[in-house]
Amino acid sequence: MVVGSVALDSVFTPFGETADALGGSAVHFSVAGSLLSKVKVVGVIGSDYPVKELERLASRGIDWSGVERVDGESFRWKGKYSYDLQSRETLETRLGVFATFRPKLPESWRDTPYLFLGNIDPELQLSVLEQVRRPKLVVCDTMNYWIQGKRPELMKLLERVDVLLVNDGEARELSGNWNIHKAGRWILERGPKLVVIKQGEYGALLMDPSRTFYVPAYPLEEVFDPTGAGDAFAGGFMGYLARVDSVAPEQMRRAMVYGSAMGSFAVEGFDIRGFDGVDFDAVQRRVKAFVDLTHVPAAEPLP
Amino acid sequence: MVVGSVALDSVFTPFGETADALGGSAVHFSVAGSLLSKVKVVGVIGSDYPVKELERLASRGIDWSGVERVDGESFRWKGKYSYDLQSRETLETRLGVFATFRPKLPESWRDTPYLFLGNIDPELQLSVLEQVRRPKLVVCDTMNYWIQGKRPELMKLLERVDVLLVNDGEARELSGNWNIHKAGRWILERGPKLVVIKQGEYGALLMDPSRTFYVPAYPLEEVFDPTGAGDAFAGGFMGYLARVDSVAPEQMRRAMVYGSAMGSFAVEGFDIRGFDGVDFDAVQRRVKAFVDLTHVPAAEPLP
Repeated sequence: MVVGSVALDSVFTPFGETADALGGSAVHFSVAGSLLSKVKVVGVIGSDYPVKELERLASRGIDWSGVERVDGESFRWKGKYSYDLQSRETLETRLGVFATFRPKLPESWRDTPYLFLGNIDPELQLSVLEQVRRPKLVVCDTMNYWIQGKRPELMKLLERVDVLLVNDGEARELSGNWNIHKAGRWILERGPKLVVIKQGEYGALLMDPSRTFYVPAYPLEEVFDPTGAGDAFAGGFMGYLARVDSVAPEQMRRAMVYGSAMGSFAVEGFDIRGFDGVDFDAVQRRVKAFVDLTHVPAAEPLP
Repeated sequence: MVVGSVALDSVFTPFGETADALGGSAVHFSVAGSLLSKVKVVGVIGSDYPVKELERLASRGIDWSGVERVDGESFRWKGKYSYDLQSRETLETRLGVFATFRPKLPESWRDTPYLFLGNIDPELQLSVLEQVRRPKLVVCDTMNYWIQGKRPELMKLLERVDVLLVNDGEARELSGNWNIHKAGRWILERGPKLVVIKQGEYGALLMDPSRTFYVPAYPLEEVFDPTGAGDAFAGGFMGYLARVDSVAPEQMRRAMVYGSAMGSFAVEGFDIRGFDGVDFDAVQRRVKAFVDLTHVPAAEPLP
C-alpha cells in the first residue's frame, strides 16, 4: 500500500517535454511496484483527472479504490531540468484538491503489512500510519520542503518508521552533515532501523548501524526524464519485499537491486513511459545485469 | 614500473595543510603499489629533494634507482581544496627540473611487464613506452592540461596503451561527452581495450566494449586529503595484476577492488600518511570489506 500524490506533471528536459502527464509519487511507485506485487493506492484526484488512464493501469494489479475523487483541480507540478539532468527547478506547484486531503483508509486496508508513505506532508503520513494495524514494514520518503517547513512532525514520524528513503541532498539537509555516511548515521539515531540514500546517477546506499550496502546506477547512455525515479525505486524495493514477504537483511539487499532496476527503467522514458513493454521477465533480466555490474570474481589466495 | 612525478606538494584542505610534503604521481603510486608488488620508479628530482625520505620508503620494496637527481629545484605543486573536497584549485605549479626531464630507462628495466605511465607530458609517456620491450600491460593516466595542450600526442599514445585510467571530468573533456558511459565508449574506440573512470567519492568504473564493472568508494566518515588517491588507485590496480601476473578479465575486476582499497587509504591522511601502519593484511581486510559492500545475496527463485 502506498499513500502519495496522484498528479499531473509538466516536465521540461533537454530531450523533450510533457504536459499534464500522469505523475505523482503514488503513480510512479505503483507502476513499478505492480511488476512485483499487488499495489493499493491511497490518494486524491480532482474532477479533471484522466480517470481512464488510471483504469488502464488497474489491469496491472493496481487497486485505485483508495483514491478519492473530489470536485476541484488535481495536483499539478511543473518542473524544468538542467542540461545535464543534475538539477531541476520547480516552475509551478498547484496543490488543488490535495490542499484539503485527509487520507482515510478503507477498513479492509488497515491490515496492510507493507506500507510506503510517499512524499507528502508528514502530518498526513502520520495519520495514515495511525490507521494501519501492526504493519511488518513502514518505509517513508520526504523532501526539502517538509524538512524545512515541518521538521518537528517529520522527526516524530521518523521515530515510527522502519526505513527512511531519501536522496543525498535530503539526507544532508535533514542531518546537517555534508558527509553522506555521517548523515546516514544521524538518521539511524533518530528512529529508522535502516536508511536508503539515493544518489541519482551514482546509485544508492542502504545503511544499518553496522553495515553499508551499495548498488550503482545502471550504465545508461541515454537518460530522458529523472522524474519519478525515486518513487519507482521505492516501488521496486517494497514490491520485492512484499512479494517475498520478508524483511530479512539479505532480502533488503536484494530489494535494493530491484529498486535500482525500477529506477533505471523509469528514467528511460517520460512520465511512466519508461515502463512501456517492461514485464516481469524484463525486470528479472535487469536485476541480473545489476548483480553482474558489481560481481567480484572469487580468487585464489594471493601468491 | 611507473614513470611519473616525484614532487613536493603543499596542500590546503578544510582539515589541515602540508608544506613541501612528499607527493607526485610516482610517489603515491609506489607507496600503494609496493604493498602488493616490487615497484621501480622512473623520474627526476632536484638537488633540494629530501632523499632520506625516499630511502626510507625503499625498504618497502620501491626501487628509486631510475630517478635521476639533477641540479635545480624539484617539481612543486600547491593546491587548495573546496570545503567539501569536491573541487580543487591549483595555486602554483613549479616544474623545476621536470621541465627538461627526458626519461631514460636503465637497460635492465626495458623488459618490465607491467608499466604505468603516470600523469606527465604525453610525449614523455610515449618515449618511455618506446623504451620498453613487449610489455604485458600498459596503463596510462592523463589530465586536463594535456587533453587541452597536447591532444594529438595524447591520441597517438591512446592507440598504444591497454588501459586508460582517468577521472570522470577528464573522460568528459577528452571525449566531449557528458554521459560517462558514452565518454567511456568514445575512449574505447580510440585504442585502449579497457577504460577505468574514477569518480572520487562515488567509486570507479571499469569498461570494456561489452561490459561495465563498478566499485563504489569505501564508506568513510572522514576524508582528509584527496591528493594522490587516483595514483594510489593505479598503484593498487597495477600492483595486484603484477602480483598475480595476469591480465584476465576476472583479475581486472579484482584489480579494481585493490585499486579502490588503496584509494580509500590514501584519502585518510595527508600526503602519504594515509598508508601509515597499513600492511598487506590491512589491505586484504579492506578488500574483503569492499567485496561485502556490493555483495548481493543469492536468492530462491521469486514466488
